[in-house]
Amino acid sequence: MTAFAVSQSQPPLNLMPMPSSVQMGTGQLLVDRSFSVAATGFHDASLDRGVQRFVAQLSAQTGLPFRPKPGPASTLQIHAEHNREQLQKLGEDESYELAITDSGAKLNASNPLGILHGLQTFLQLVQPSATGFVVPAVTIKDQPRFPWRGLLIDVSRHFIPLTVLKQNLDGMAAVKMNVLHWHLSDDQGFRVESKKFPKLHEMGSEGLYYTQSEIREFVEYAHDRGIRVIPEFDMPGHSGSWFVGYPELASNPGAYNFEVGGPDSVTDPTTESTYKFLDKFIEEMAKLFPDAYFHIGGDEVNGKHWDANPKIQEFIHAHGMKNNQDLQAYFNQRLLKIVTKHHKNMIGWDEILHPNLPKTIVIQSWRGQESLAAAAKQGYSGLLSFGYYLDLMWPAAQHYAVDPMSGAAATLSAEEKGRILGGESCMWAEWITPENVDSHIWPRNAVIAERLWSPQEVTDAGSMYTRLNAVSLQLESMGLTHRSARMHMLHRMAGTEDISALRTLADVVEPVKGYNRWDDSKGPIDFHAPLNRLIDAVYPESDVARHFGDLVKLYSQSNFKDKAAEAQIRTFLVTWSENDAKLHPVIDKSFLLQEVAPISEDFSALAAAGLHALDYLDRSEPSPDSWRAQQTTLIERAKTPRAALLLMVAAPLQQLIEAGGNKASQ
Amino acid sequence: MTAFAVSQSQPPLNLMPMPSSVQMGTGQLLVDRSFSVAATGFHDASLDRGVQRFVAQLSAQTGLPFRPKPGPASTLQIHAEHNREQLQKLGEDESYELAITDSGAKLNASNPLGILHGLQTFLQLVQPSATGFVVPAVTIKDQPRFPWRGLLIDVSRHFIPLTVLKQNLDGMAAVKMNVLHWHLSDDQGFRVESKKFPKLHEMGSEGLYYTQSEIREFVEYAHDRGIRVIPEFDMPGHSGSWFVGYPELASNPGAYNFEVGGPDSVTDPTTESTYKFLDKFIEEMAKLFPDAYFHIGGDEVNGKHWDANPKIQEFIHAHGMKNNQDLQAYFNQRLLKIVTKHHKNMIGWDEILHPNLPKTIVIQSWRGQESLAAAAKQGYSGLLSFGYYLDLMWPAAQHYAVDPMSGAAATLSAEEKGRILGGESCMWAEWITPENVDSHIWPRNAVIAERLWSPQEVTDAGSMYTRLNAVSLQLESMGLTHRSARMHMLHRMAGTEDISALRTLADVVEPVKGYNRWDDSKGPIDFHAPLNRLIDAVYPESDVARHFGDLVKLYSQSNFKDKAAEAQIRTFLVTWSENDAKLHPVIDKSFLLQEVAPISEDFSALAAAGLHALDYLDRSEPSPDSWRAQQTTLIERAKTPRAALLLMVAAPLQQLIEAGGNKASQ
Repeated sequence: MTAFAVSQSQPPLNLMPMPSSVQMGTGQLLVDRSFSVAATGFHDASLDRGVQRFVAQLSAQTGLPFRPKPGPASTLQIHAEHNREQLQKLGEDESYELAITDSGAKLNASNPLGILHGLQTFLQLVQPSATGFVVPAVTIKDQPRFPWRGLLIDVSRHFIPLTVLKQNLDGMAAVKMNVLHWHLSDDQGFRVESKKFPKLHEMGSEGLYYTQSEIREFVEYAHDRGIRVIPEFDMPGHSGSWFVGYPELASNPGAYNFEVGGPDSVTDPTTESTYKFLDKFIEEMAKLFPDAYFHIGGDEVNGKHWDANPKIQEFIHAHGMKNNQDLQAYFNQRLLKIVTKHHKNMIGWDEILHPNLPKTIVIQSWRGQESLAAAAKQGYSGLLSFGYYLDLMWPAAQHYAVDPMSGAAATLSAEEKGRILGGESCMWAEWITPENVDSHIWPRNAVIAERLWSPQEVTDAGSMYTRLNAVSLQLESMGLTHRSARMHMLHRMAGTEDISALRTLADVVEPVKGYNRWDDSKGPIDFHAPLNRLIDAVYPESDVARHFGDLVKLYSQSNFKDKAAEAQIRTFLVTWSENDAKLHPVIDKSFLLQEVAPISEDFSALAAAGLHALDYLDRSEPSPDSWRAQQTTLIERAKTPRAALLLMVAAPLQQLIEAGGNKASQ
Repeated sequence: MTAFAVSQSQPPLNLMPMPSSVQMGTGQLLVDRSFSVAATGFHDASLDRGVQRFVAQLSAQTGLPFRPKPGPASTLQIHAEHNREQLQKLGEDESYELAITDSGAKLNASNPLGILHGLQTFLQLVQPSATGFVVPAVTIKDQPRFPWRGLLIDVSRHFIPLTVLKQNLDGMAAVKMNVLHWHLSDDQGFRVESKKFPKLHEMGSEGLYYTQSEIREFVEYAHDRGIRVIPEFDMPGHSGSWFVGYPELASNPGAYNFEVGGPDSVTDPTTESTYKFLDKFIEEMAKLFPDAYFHIGGDEVNGKHWDANPKIQEFIHAHGMKNNQDLQAYFNQRLLKIVTKHHKNMIGWDEILHPNLPKTIVIQSWRGQESLAAAAKQGYSGLLSFGYYLDLMWPAAQHYAVDPMSGAAATLSAEEKGRILGGESCMWAEWITPENVDSHIWPRNAVIAERLWSPQEVTDAGSMYTRLNAVSLQLESMGLTHRSARMHMLHRMAGTEDISALRTLADVVEPVKGYNRWDDSKGPIDFHAPLNRLIDAVYPESDVARHFGDLVKLYSQSNFKDKAAEAQIRTFLVTWSENDAKLHPVIDKSFLLQEVAPISEDFSALAAAGLHALDYLDRSEPSPDSWRAQQTTLIERAKTPRAALLLMVAAPLQQLIEAGGNKASQ
């Protein structure tokens, strides 16, 4: 039985990712203060810590203070057959079986990785009921669809402290992701202590970097949670921060600093000293990061500084290369030798794909399934990140609809498909701070985790949103702040205790999508600018607006007869129509809110128009053409981005307002 | 100019505690990303860390990412004249002067303690305005009224991890408290690692204790914030947890365990081995806790086990003692010698006061100003804790009204008054967990901090509540969870994402007061019981109910003519009258909420009756006596505690409902 079949015939389980097989049983298991866990079979310190975390989280979810007294009569019996690899390997068995009856639960797996996943599934099943906290009787057999399920976090554009990253590792473990791709260097910062080249972090980080001992502890923390840590040192492009301390690596001569860097920075691939440097550097980093894979970036080399440097152009001609792409391939070949020498597999973005490189490299596609499929056809392994960029502010459903095996990839042979290892969501940090990074990653990242873990046919967006709400709450209870941090930010903007009106507005707007927050005509992004505007506080996806849109759709599909839907719509509209009057005094007192004054005004005006429209529909009286025409200006303005925000209820309100005319003509 | 005068003639500053002198200036200082701090005069690592924390907190409050570049043109110039004592001393100079103009700020103090306080004052002054974040031009000269301003946290009844305690130290520093009184042992747990007597923590803590290295780091953390840490090891009563590992210390023979312990446990003061034990133990703890004061408890010795032990009774007679009180005095004299030998000043609760003890001891009064005054008259120094018990669930205003110098203490001579060193709020932990401890301490603790810091004439409760709201927000932004933790607890109870109806109910109830949550007829408290009921989640004081009560008072005082007040009352009542219909389905699904079903029903019914009452008042029509009589049953039931909760809007609603009759008779 597939999960999809279950979701239609059974009361839905709030599981995300959905397991590959779910068989509902009869009854439920009570979780009370006598609950205990016992492990038989293989166990090690990492598994024991996993069980301890499980008990602590179960206690946090239920408020039950468990006292440790495992024994043969324990509620949950776990059994791992053998150890996991000391260094977690790509493709290691992550499967588990969880069997819950009304008298107890058994969790079996071939190794501790499966146990960790099964414990997370158990936590998601715990719910209050009329008789106590319970877990439904169920048998789950589960394993991942793809072996590589990653999250990239960029810590270069804005530094993110380890405490915040650790919470995100906890979140990843909760949704069964198993790779943290750590984007550690870029033009805006070099974030790792290098003992061999200390000017990298000393001059390239403004003091914000991770020490080697912190990194070792962090990698251990991830390992405990079944997560591999892959470092990325982006080169030869995106490497401006290296040049602050070591300008001799750059393709453009002269002193480098953060102010004159920017998107053109690129390593000089024509001098032997570059490779000597990289050999020593990668040797050091290869020891610091134990994973078998090493990400060298390789994206977006625009070549301006190569074009401008006669020595480099001469090198291109002398070596019979045709263009900068050939030069980058040459660089990558040299780099590959170094990476291989230090016992790592090389991984890089689309652009490193070049026939001169061997099939051992892994291609990470930010361009789409086409380039992923092309790589697979040529014999390269690959990962999809196109469609999973969390910084583009897409709704969860849009990410959810992107499948690594769709589009061009769907036509691959079985062997070629086997080369698609999975995917990674990407949290690029142009507009991210430690304060709001959680809300930009979560809960949306959970649906990408599901896409990469669950069977391909699990695609129902309605079920996804229901389950996403539940997992979102659970993630907050684990310490992530994707919902709670907004409150503090709104209080800061308002400077008052009562932020109800501001929250009402924040609930119905979303940041502009894609790269529309900034255009290059404004000049380069100021990475030291405060990120304390409303756009920085609001959620990437408005649950309220989606819910309101669903209500309007329901009401409209009932031919405006569904009185329950109408009543709910009306309740929203009454509150909204009165909101600007409450919010305006707050806006007037705060420079941070002044930019949203026009949105607030239009929001309330549009809600008032929506109430009028409801009245017309109620009376089955056509709304006057002139009235609707008047609203058009308002609607068009409300649909225009302002303060880089979109008023997400404008479209459903337009639908309501225009319905009055349509109805009249029926 | 006193602060009180300021609060009536000037726009109120959101300062808590209110400084002793505030002189408003003209204009305001802009705090933007160019803000910087420079220190001249004395500084040390502890001061530097204080400045770093200040900058980090200012950044958290404003969202401005400050880059460190202090210089002569810095916005805030701080200057300490000399160092503070290496070991913070009672009565050390904590004064400071903060002068803010539209062009900059100066903070001067004789030593870093005053600087730390002044930085907290600065943080409280920062507000958004129409032009940016600003601090008003003001000159503040400030020093504490009392030198001892403490918070007791009981970590024995329920263990509180250091991460939570550290957040509370941050909160204490924000409101200028300077003593953490750490109640480390009691019947329910011994929480400190002892290397000399390891069975104390190994057998007496169920594994929940602080290691010595953790304690050293914690004491340093407190010192950095200008806070002394006073350990309390309660004896000879409240010492059951000692006896699990060392039953030979107990006055009742036989094996001791947590289940058979309880309130009668008491040390045997008649054997020399007890004093040998305590000598070694106090020697060890005296080194671990550097403060000059050492708290030996001494409260609530009920003497049952002394009465029951013939050997002890024989000892009393043989030494010519009259009763158990004399025996305790004997114990305290012996204890005092040991404490003194290890270079500490002894402090204890009221009961240790006995003419046989020297004037060097300090008496902490939990009984009232009378015993405090009596002690002062006899020459003993004292602290007030009566009236500051946070576990009694009093509203802030009730604590605020308690002054150490009022009642019997008001009649003391100046010299005697000088013996009253200050006071301590007390967070006893019978009903506390790490999850809800913040909400039981904060924000109410801030008003006790003000009582102990600010001039005695600062007593206006209205001003206090306004400022308390502001400081409460600030404390949350520092990481305390006194407001945010409730959300997670309500979600847990509801098991759903939408908790709006549950929150509406939670907003208008308070826990029962005093010791009414438990009565001894139920048997001893089960300290392992889950604390996950609604009473554990709600705030000790309902802001909504207080606000609603104020509205009803306003409306009533206007002889029911104030239409604005009436409109606000009506808005509340409409929401409340509809609340049970929304909440009931949630209650039905959760065993944790079933006990509040009757409250929810009565809450909505009473609100509906309130709406009827408003209608009568609106129409200036007397409500029928029979209708009012009908409501009486409802009102009386609504005023009865259920699920250990009080419906705090019952009284103002009664006022509204009864007004209909009164008005009619006018």
